[in-house]
Amino acid sequence: MQIAIINDITLPYNKVGPEYLDRGIFFGDGVYEVIRSYNGKIFALEDHLERFAASLRAIEITKIDINKIRDKIIQAFEKANIPNAYIYFHITRGSGPRNHVCSDNLEPNFFLTVKELEDDTKVKNTGIGVITYPDQRWKRCDIKSLNLLPNVMARREAAKNGCDEAVFVNDEGFITEGAASAFFAIKDKKLQTSPLSANILPSISRKFVLKAAINIGLGIFDASITPQQAASCDELFIAVTTKDIVPVVKFDDKLIGNGKPGKYTKALSEEFRKFTE
Amino acid sequence: MQIAIINDITLPYNKVGPEYLDRGIFFGDGVYEVIRSYNGKIFALEDHLERFAASLRAIEITKIDINKIRDKIIQAFEKANIPNAYIYFHITRGSGPRNHVCSDNLEPNFFLTVKELEDDTKVKNTGIGVITYPDQRWKRCDIKSLNLLPNVMARREAAKNGCDEAVFVNDEGFITEGAASAFFAIKDKKLQTSPLSANILPSISRKFVLKAAINIGLGIFDASITPQQAASCDELFIAVTTKDIVPVVKFDDKLIGNGKPGKYTKALSEEFRKFTE
Repeated sequence: MQIAIINDITLPYNKVGPEYLDRGIFFGDGVYEVIRSYNGKIFALEDHLERFAASLRAIEITKIDINKIRDKIIQAFEKANIPNAYIYFHITRGSGPRNHVCSDNLEPNFFLTVKELEDDTKVKNTGIGVITYPDQRWKRCDIKSLNLLPNVMARREAAKNGCDEAVFVNDEGFITEGAASAFFAIKDKKLQTSPLSANILPSISRKFVLKAAINIGLGIFDASITPQQAASCDELFIAVTTKDIVPVVKFDDKLIGNGKPGKYTKALSEEFRKFTE
Repeated sequence: MQIAIINDITLPYNKVGPEYLDRGIFFGDGVYEVIRSYNGKIFALEDHLERFAASLRAIEITKIDINKIRDKIIQAFEKANIPNAYIYFHITRGSGPRNHVCSDNLEPNFFLTVKELEDDTKVKNTGIGVITYPDQRWKRCDIKSLNLLPNVMARREAAKNGCDEAVFVNDEGFITEGAASAFFAIKDKKLQTSPLSANILPSISRKFVLKAAINIGLGIFDASITPQQAASCDELFIAVTTKDIVPVVKFDDKLIGNGKPGKYTKALSEEFRKFTE
């Protein structure tokens, strides 16, 4: 008889629920998005849906109607009634026996949560420390997939060093992005960040940061930066959906500026907030 | 109120079961093994357990007693009473809210299935076709992790081309391994396969293939091979736990040998079977 063990429970294989046979868990065969709201308004929903559709296309999960996804998000958000909400959702290729190749008739699985965002006042006011970490990820980080073990490992290492983020450095010695954020440097009134490529997530926060930079009169330098260059910049910050702009005041062992969030970072933060109103 | 949607069901977030909050699905934050039995005897159990322990260590999932895992496998196998069984198991870091960093007190999740192996007579007798595919995986493929999306994508492409396996080619132009197998070439009575590295799974089948090669008097050439070189070899095959040795008779569009399994591949297959008795 075919059987299964789930933690300490032994059961016949045919009694195993589809949630345990999700290709998301066997292979990370799915894609996700994180969206947030500001004061009761979902931010950049269409941008996120567009990127989600691109991720689905890239891994060939078809049959998804993005309009239905939008409806589900909005319904869930309204039902939750949380002004500053963290909205997570993923779609996997479906549930079935563990085979790399599966039938195209598999029904994709959808999962979404709407939760309270954690308060980010402290990290925004005092800034965070980051470590550099080798970029060991796969070559299609433009796809927002569930294959995130290297990101977890990098973040764990950051936490061990009392830091909140790890910044990936590729084999060529350049910073690509954070484990769960985009990375920015400011020097001589110019904002520098990695150009988009097949191995960088097309960050939606990045897009709004660049807009904000233009609005406050910063120059933009769309070029990769080395850790050595970053450490000698005037200001550093990361951008991430859940917290928009977060100042970086420690980079590995080096204090940035005077160890406090810099003035342009603050100005960008204020400018960014205008987009969210 | 914090809420969730699971497929079409909306529910309060605090009613979401731990199986939906598994770090395995959010991040692929876990490792796995596949073992098989031959005629009622589990093959190479200790090798697999040793590799599993190494994978757990590499991603810092601690607190796992490998002796208890061994007991579970043996109990499940005996209970299933399937002579030629496919045994799959994984451990994830546990279930909890979706955060890259989590408490070290999280209880890891264990999942195992024992199923009938598919009959492999046909693929062994007629051989399979393989395609080459860019190796886009992360840089720690020595860890048998649940981050397998690139492997799924490669296998899907193989299937579209009527092939059973995709063979990864790295940026340097060398074959690393198959999407779910080790890859071997035979030329002039020498067996060639990639040397083990941080980016190749220490295949247990590989170890037994090399033993078998020595036993039948083949030379061993532990060096990476290019697709061009592979296409001009006398014989090709893959090795994988579930089917041990499977002849490769088509490599991209090129027939290998006379399009039939080669004599040394057959001899290796017979020699391999002796280890399993």
